[in-house]
Amino acid sequence: MKAYLEHINKAFESRARLGIMSVLMVEERVDFSTLKDTLQLTDGNLASHLRALEEAEYLQVEKQFVGRKPNTTYQATETGREAFQEHLDALEQLILNNRKEN
Amino acid sequence: MKAYLEHINKAFESRARLGIMSVLMVEERVDFSTLKDTLQLTDGNLASHLRALEEAEYLQVEKQFVGRKPNTTYQATETGREAFQEHLDALEQLILNNRKEN
Repeated sequence: MKAYLEHINKAFESRARLGIMSVLMVEERVDFSTLKDTLQLTDGNLASHLRALEEAEYLQVEKQFVGRKPNTTYQATETGREAFQEHLDALEQLILNNRKEN
Repeated sequence: MKAYLEHINKAFESRARLGIMSVLMVEERVDFSTLKDTLQLTDGNLASHLRALEEAEYLQVEKQFVGRKPNTTYQATETGREAFQEHLDALEQLILNNRKEN
């Protein structure tokens, strides 16, 4: 396999996960409804992608109360930041190779 | 949703499909075993991704005989080339946005 393809990370393949990680690379801590509004995903779809990224230890979840309302926030882990950067680098290689060869 | 995310095409999300389309953007016509060797996929996995791309009309399949051996070749369609380029452009936007904001 072309070397750069090996660094494309299955955990980030979907548009939703690319979107989630892009948001979390910029914002320190983001709540569920901000992610939902930004990415225009359904609750179920967003929750399932967040859970997968949490299981991969690419993000961490914090549950707290704001007054009496539960508020869940998400933050990229250091592992997640590094893995996402590596994924973006591999995509960049793919783009550059396509450009060079055409 | 951030505008560029809308141009990320589900049909090209997986590493295998990124690899297949990258090969077909460069080579006019590629046979199954060349794709298999280049991308190091199993027969079943490669066949299923090729079928999905064919159903999306992003590639076309030609079956012929070389002597008495069947030989199947794959070629990107014009639609496929355009769609893949659009996908790569969206990924490039994503990468640039991540770079700018960090």
